[in-house]
Amino acid sequence: MSENNKSYIRKGQYENIQLSIYLDAKGHVLDLDLQHLDQAALTRPAITALIDHTLLKPEATKEQIRTLCEEALEYQFGAVCVNSCWTALCTQLLQGSGIKVASVIGFPWGSPVTAAKVAEARQAILDGACELDMVMNYGKLKSGDYTYVAHDIREVVRLAHKHDALVKVILETSVLSEEEKVIACLIAKEVGADFVKTSTGFASGGATVEDIALMRKVVGPDMGVKASGGVRSYADAQKMLAAGATRIGTSSGIRIVQEAMA
Amino acid sequence: MSENNKSYIRKGQYENIQLSIYLDAKGHVLDLDLQHLDQAALTRPAITALIDHTLLKPEATKEQIRTLCEEALEYQFGAVCVNSCWTALCTQLLQGSGIKVASVIGFPWGSPVTAAKVAEARQAILDGACELDMVMNYGKLKSGDYTYVAHDIREVVRLAHKHDALVKVILETSVLSEEEKVIACLIAKEVGADFVKTSTGFASGGATVEDIALMRKVVGPDMGVKASGGVRSYADAQKMLAAGATRIGTSSGIRIVQEAMA
Repeated sequence: MSENNKSYIRKGQYENIQLSIYLDAKGHVLDLDLQHLDQAALTRPAITALIDHTLLKPEATKEQIRTLCEEALEYQFGAVCVNSCWTALCTQLLQGSGIKVASVIGFPWGSPVTAAKVAEARQAILDGACELDMVMNYGKLKSGDYTYVAHDIREVVRLAHKHDALVKVILETSVLSEEEKVIACLIAKEVGADFVKTSTGFASGGATVEDIALMRKVVGPDMGVKASGGVRSYADAQKMLAAGATRIGTSSGIRIVQEAMA
Repeated sequence: MSENNKSYIRKGQYENIQLSIYLDAKGHVLDLDLQHLDQAALTRPAITALIDHTLLKPEATKEQIRTLCEEALEYQFGAVCVNSCWTALCTQLLQGSGIKVASVIGFPWGSPVTAAKVAEARQAILDGACELDMVMNYGKLKSGDYTYVAHDIREVVRLAHKHDALVKVILETSVLSEEEKVIACLIAKEVGADFVKTSTGFASGGATVEDIALMRKVVGPDMGVKASGGVRSYADAQKMLAAGATRIGTSSGIRIVQEAMA
């Protein structure tokens, strides 16, 4: 690759990781150069705080949600991430622990009408959630109805911020074109969301290093980027953090922490 | 099979079809005997009116929803079935046609908190839906929290019936045990829902003749039973109707009608 047909970005601000992303004139990611990670920056406490310990399959039972919370307490994960019908239970089980409850909204498709997402967000906040992982309406995005997509997110953000809750916007990157990923990030940033997040974990694909790097590039340094879907090992998590992620959503949090400590 | 260890039910009331279901002492379906169908009873107009012409994949675009409605107008399907964000568009496109708009609620997992389902139902009705296909919270069912499941459905039914809308409760039969299917039907009937419906079409399996017969047996003759998920041919549809279904949810409605006319 010659120096003439690439631009060069250096990201030193995430977890002491140095990353170079090579892009072509249209902003497509051509190559990544990840510097060796500073292991000290990713000790157990450091990485556990970045993990949303997640159980979202719809057939999950109360006992499995209880186990999720017990694991979160044992390993001191930053948050648990659950369907909204389990928010109140998690709040009760994690009371006083400092571990946050994240509720998904409009999950897993993003296709409920906006009023449903707002009502789900309102109830989740009442039930103790301080983080909302909402799915963008990507059917509307693919229809070119960006006004709808922006309004849909803005209404949830407005409610959440009134209550000091933060909003992560799930793009479902695996079903989007590169152009759609960029537009989705710009919309999420424009309407004041706190994070962009790659995936539900229930579509055709999950987080990739390339998508994380692209999302970080589009939203800039101040917004959160959450890698989710298929992040199953410490090596996976390291790559995502190196590429610009600031949060990891995974059901393999225990394995990741155990590998990090090994 | 001896006459001693089976019970025998004859169902003559559906579309002039005679069906014998053989059950063991515990009510498990052992065998079905479908009499030859009266073809005259399943002519194009008869079967088209029973079809909910369906497009639910989340990446569906405005153009695809528009096509769905045009097809419904051409073939005179009983209803279209869409995600709630498309209800208003379908209402507009089908105005004056007599074709109903069915909106899914809490789709495809049933896991949103009750307030979200009620708000989604309210908006869908405002947007012109007169049928609501809601997903039962089967995670709560599997947790034995029948009170939650009943309340969740009852709240949507109460709102819907105030506005003369009907409610179909999607059980997601493929992830339920036989006992759970029976309990789900009993709860749906108890709280006044209008239909039980087998499947979302997005889980591990769809409608089966055995499940339709079981559901019909549990809910009795007065409630609707909708077969959905994997009903792709006229032969499939005939089997479902013969087993006790009174509505067919499918994205293969055109093929079914064409086969029926052939």
